Amino acid sequence: MIPVDRNPAKTREARLDALLLHQEVDNFNAAYAAALDEQRLTDWAEMFTEDAFYIVISRENADRGLPVGLIYCDSKRMIYDRAFALEKTTMFAPRYLRHIIGNLQILGEVANGAIRARANYVLIQVLHDRPEAKLHQVGVYHDVFRRIDGALKLAERRCIYDSLLVDNALCLPV
Amino acid sequence: MIPVDRNPAKTREARLDALLLHQEVDNFNAAYAAALDEQRLTDWAEMFTEDAFYIVISRENADRGLPVGLIYCDSKRMIYDRAFALEKTTMFAPRYLRHIIGNLQILGEVANGAIRARANYVLIQVLHDRPEAKLHQVGVYHDVFRRIDGALKLAERRCIYDSLLVDNALCLPV
Amino acid sequence: MIPVDRNPAKTREARLDALLLHQEVDNFNAAYAAALDEQRLTDWAEMFTEDAFYIVISRENADRGLPVGLIYCDSKRMIYDRAFALEKTTMFAPRYLRHIIGNLQILGEVANGAIRARANYVLIQVLHDRPEAKLHQVGVYHDVFRRIDGALKLAERRCIYDSLLVDNALCLPV
Repeated sequence: MIPVDRNPAKTREARLDALLLHQEVDNFNAAYAAALDEQRLTDWAEMFTEDAFYIVISRENADRGLPVGLIYCDSKRMIYDRAFALEKTTMFAPRYLRHIIGNLQILGEVANGAIRARANYVLIQVLHDRPEAKLHQVGVYHDVFRRIDGALKLAERRCIYDSLLVDNALCLPV
Repeated sequence: MIPVDRNPAKTREARLDALLLHQEVDNFNAAYAAALDEQRLTDWAEMFTEDAFYIVISRENADRGLPVGLIYCDSKRMIYDRAFALEKTTMFAPRYLRHIIGNLQILGEVANGAIRARANYVLIQVLHDRPEAKLHQVGVYHDVFRRIDGALKLAERRCIYDSLLVDNALCLPV
Repeated sequence: MIPVDRNPAKTREARLDALLLHQEVDNFNAAYAAALDEQRLTDWAEMFTEDAFYIVISRENADRGLPVGLIYCDSKRMIYDRAFALEKTTMFAPRYLRHIIGNLQILGEVANGAIRARANYVLIQVLHDRPEAKLHQVGVYHDVFRRIDGALKLAERRCIYDSLLVDNALCLPV
């Protein structure tokens, strides 16, 4: 769980490289949040690798190793299907969403140069017929990034949310 | 919408420069939030250029191109007037405010070295006569920064908030 | 209150050094939040120096110079005692906590290479028997870091929270 660039024995060059990687993932997460906040779901789907794994699962189920999640996709095709369905066919109450992604940690490299990371997220929702902003979901992303043609993509994003129940109305990815 | 430093073809030097700029804007936003959180409104006004444009406007109106906002200032003089009025003359219920500014994206340079950026914000309020912290406003800053005598200043900050209604009591800038 | 790396006269090398330090503190805070969010309280206690000072105090009392806080520890032993008591002996309603730490500012070096910093925090709580996530506490960390065997440790963390009252149930550190 120790972030890679806290090792004091590393050279300055290695620490700057770690910093560049941290910034690159941070930028990725900011762009990810912007795509969802602006409901550009096709752009969102484009941020995953072909074989990406994407789930939204309760902390309770994740802690017990239970696989059942609110959303489960094991390929970019499934992610696209969901984006397409939401954009073109699903009926749901109009709302605004706003992500804050913070506390990013780069946890290290795994096989083949893939990068493990985690970050906390807060998702705030405003329904169009209600004046108040509400905490919709809070949790943590457990991620694996891979580089495709030079750009980072999500090979895995597990969104583990703290709330035990979620509004029936949840239909958008986080 | 792609942040400038995600281009894999860029040299390491260019990526480090992008990182320094990102950090500089991030520091600016942290200082901006601290000035408002500590109600140092003159310090806040000092963070803008002479010809600065500052508005607080609903996402609904911004999306439709309607110009009407909660706050509208088209010069630093107007921003100072507001700061002065709030500090010296306005009556409002005492409260604490706390900003979290996250998801910063540097979107690129525009004419004359000015820098376009965006960031999400959450503003949390505690009224002195109520125990609970509440989400007061969430939204996005659309910014243009210019460098004056070496230091960044805001030439433009559009605060676009998600909530459809805002408490009558809103009187402080965001 | 001006962050150290906003000085335009500094060399590029000095600005990169400031960036590395900023990142190191940011990583520290992310690891600190993760330790508390995952209720690894012994890991949390390990992040302080032997002579560390840790308090959780209301903004009202802090502003008036009153020392009374919700939590007061003036050594790592006291911090460990609290961690041990919470993990082994205290009864409290099960809950999930999630920290977002943002707006980090490195304020400069004090005596002996110690580093002053501040950051805003939001603590969101989900009680296991209630579905909704709630804002539990918001505030600011006023910190002093020292380097012990190369790694940053907290020599001082003053958690100053905005809310005027805090749930009786508060028993975990922030």
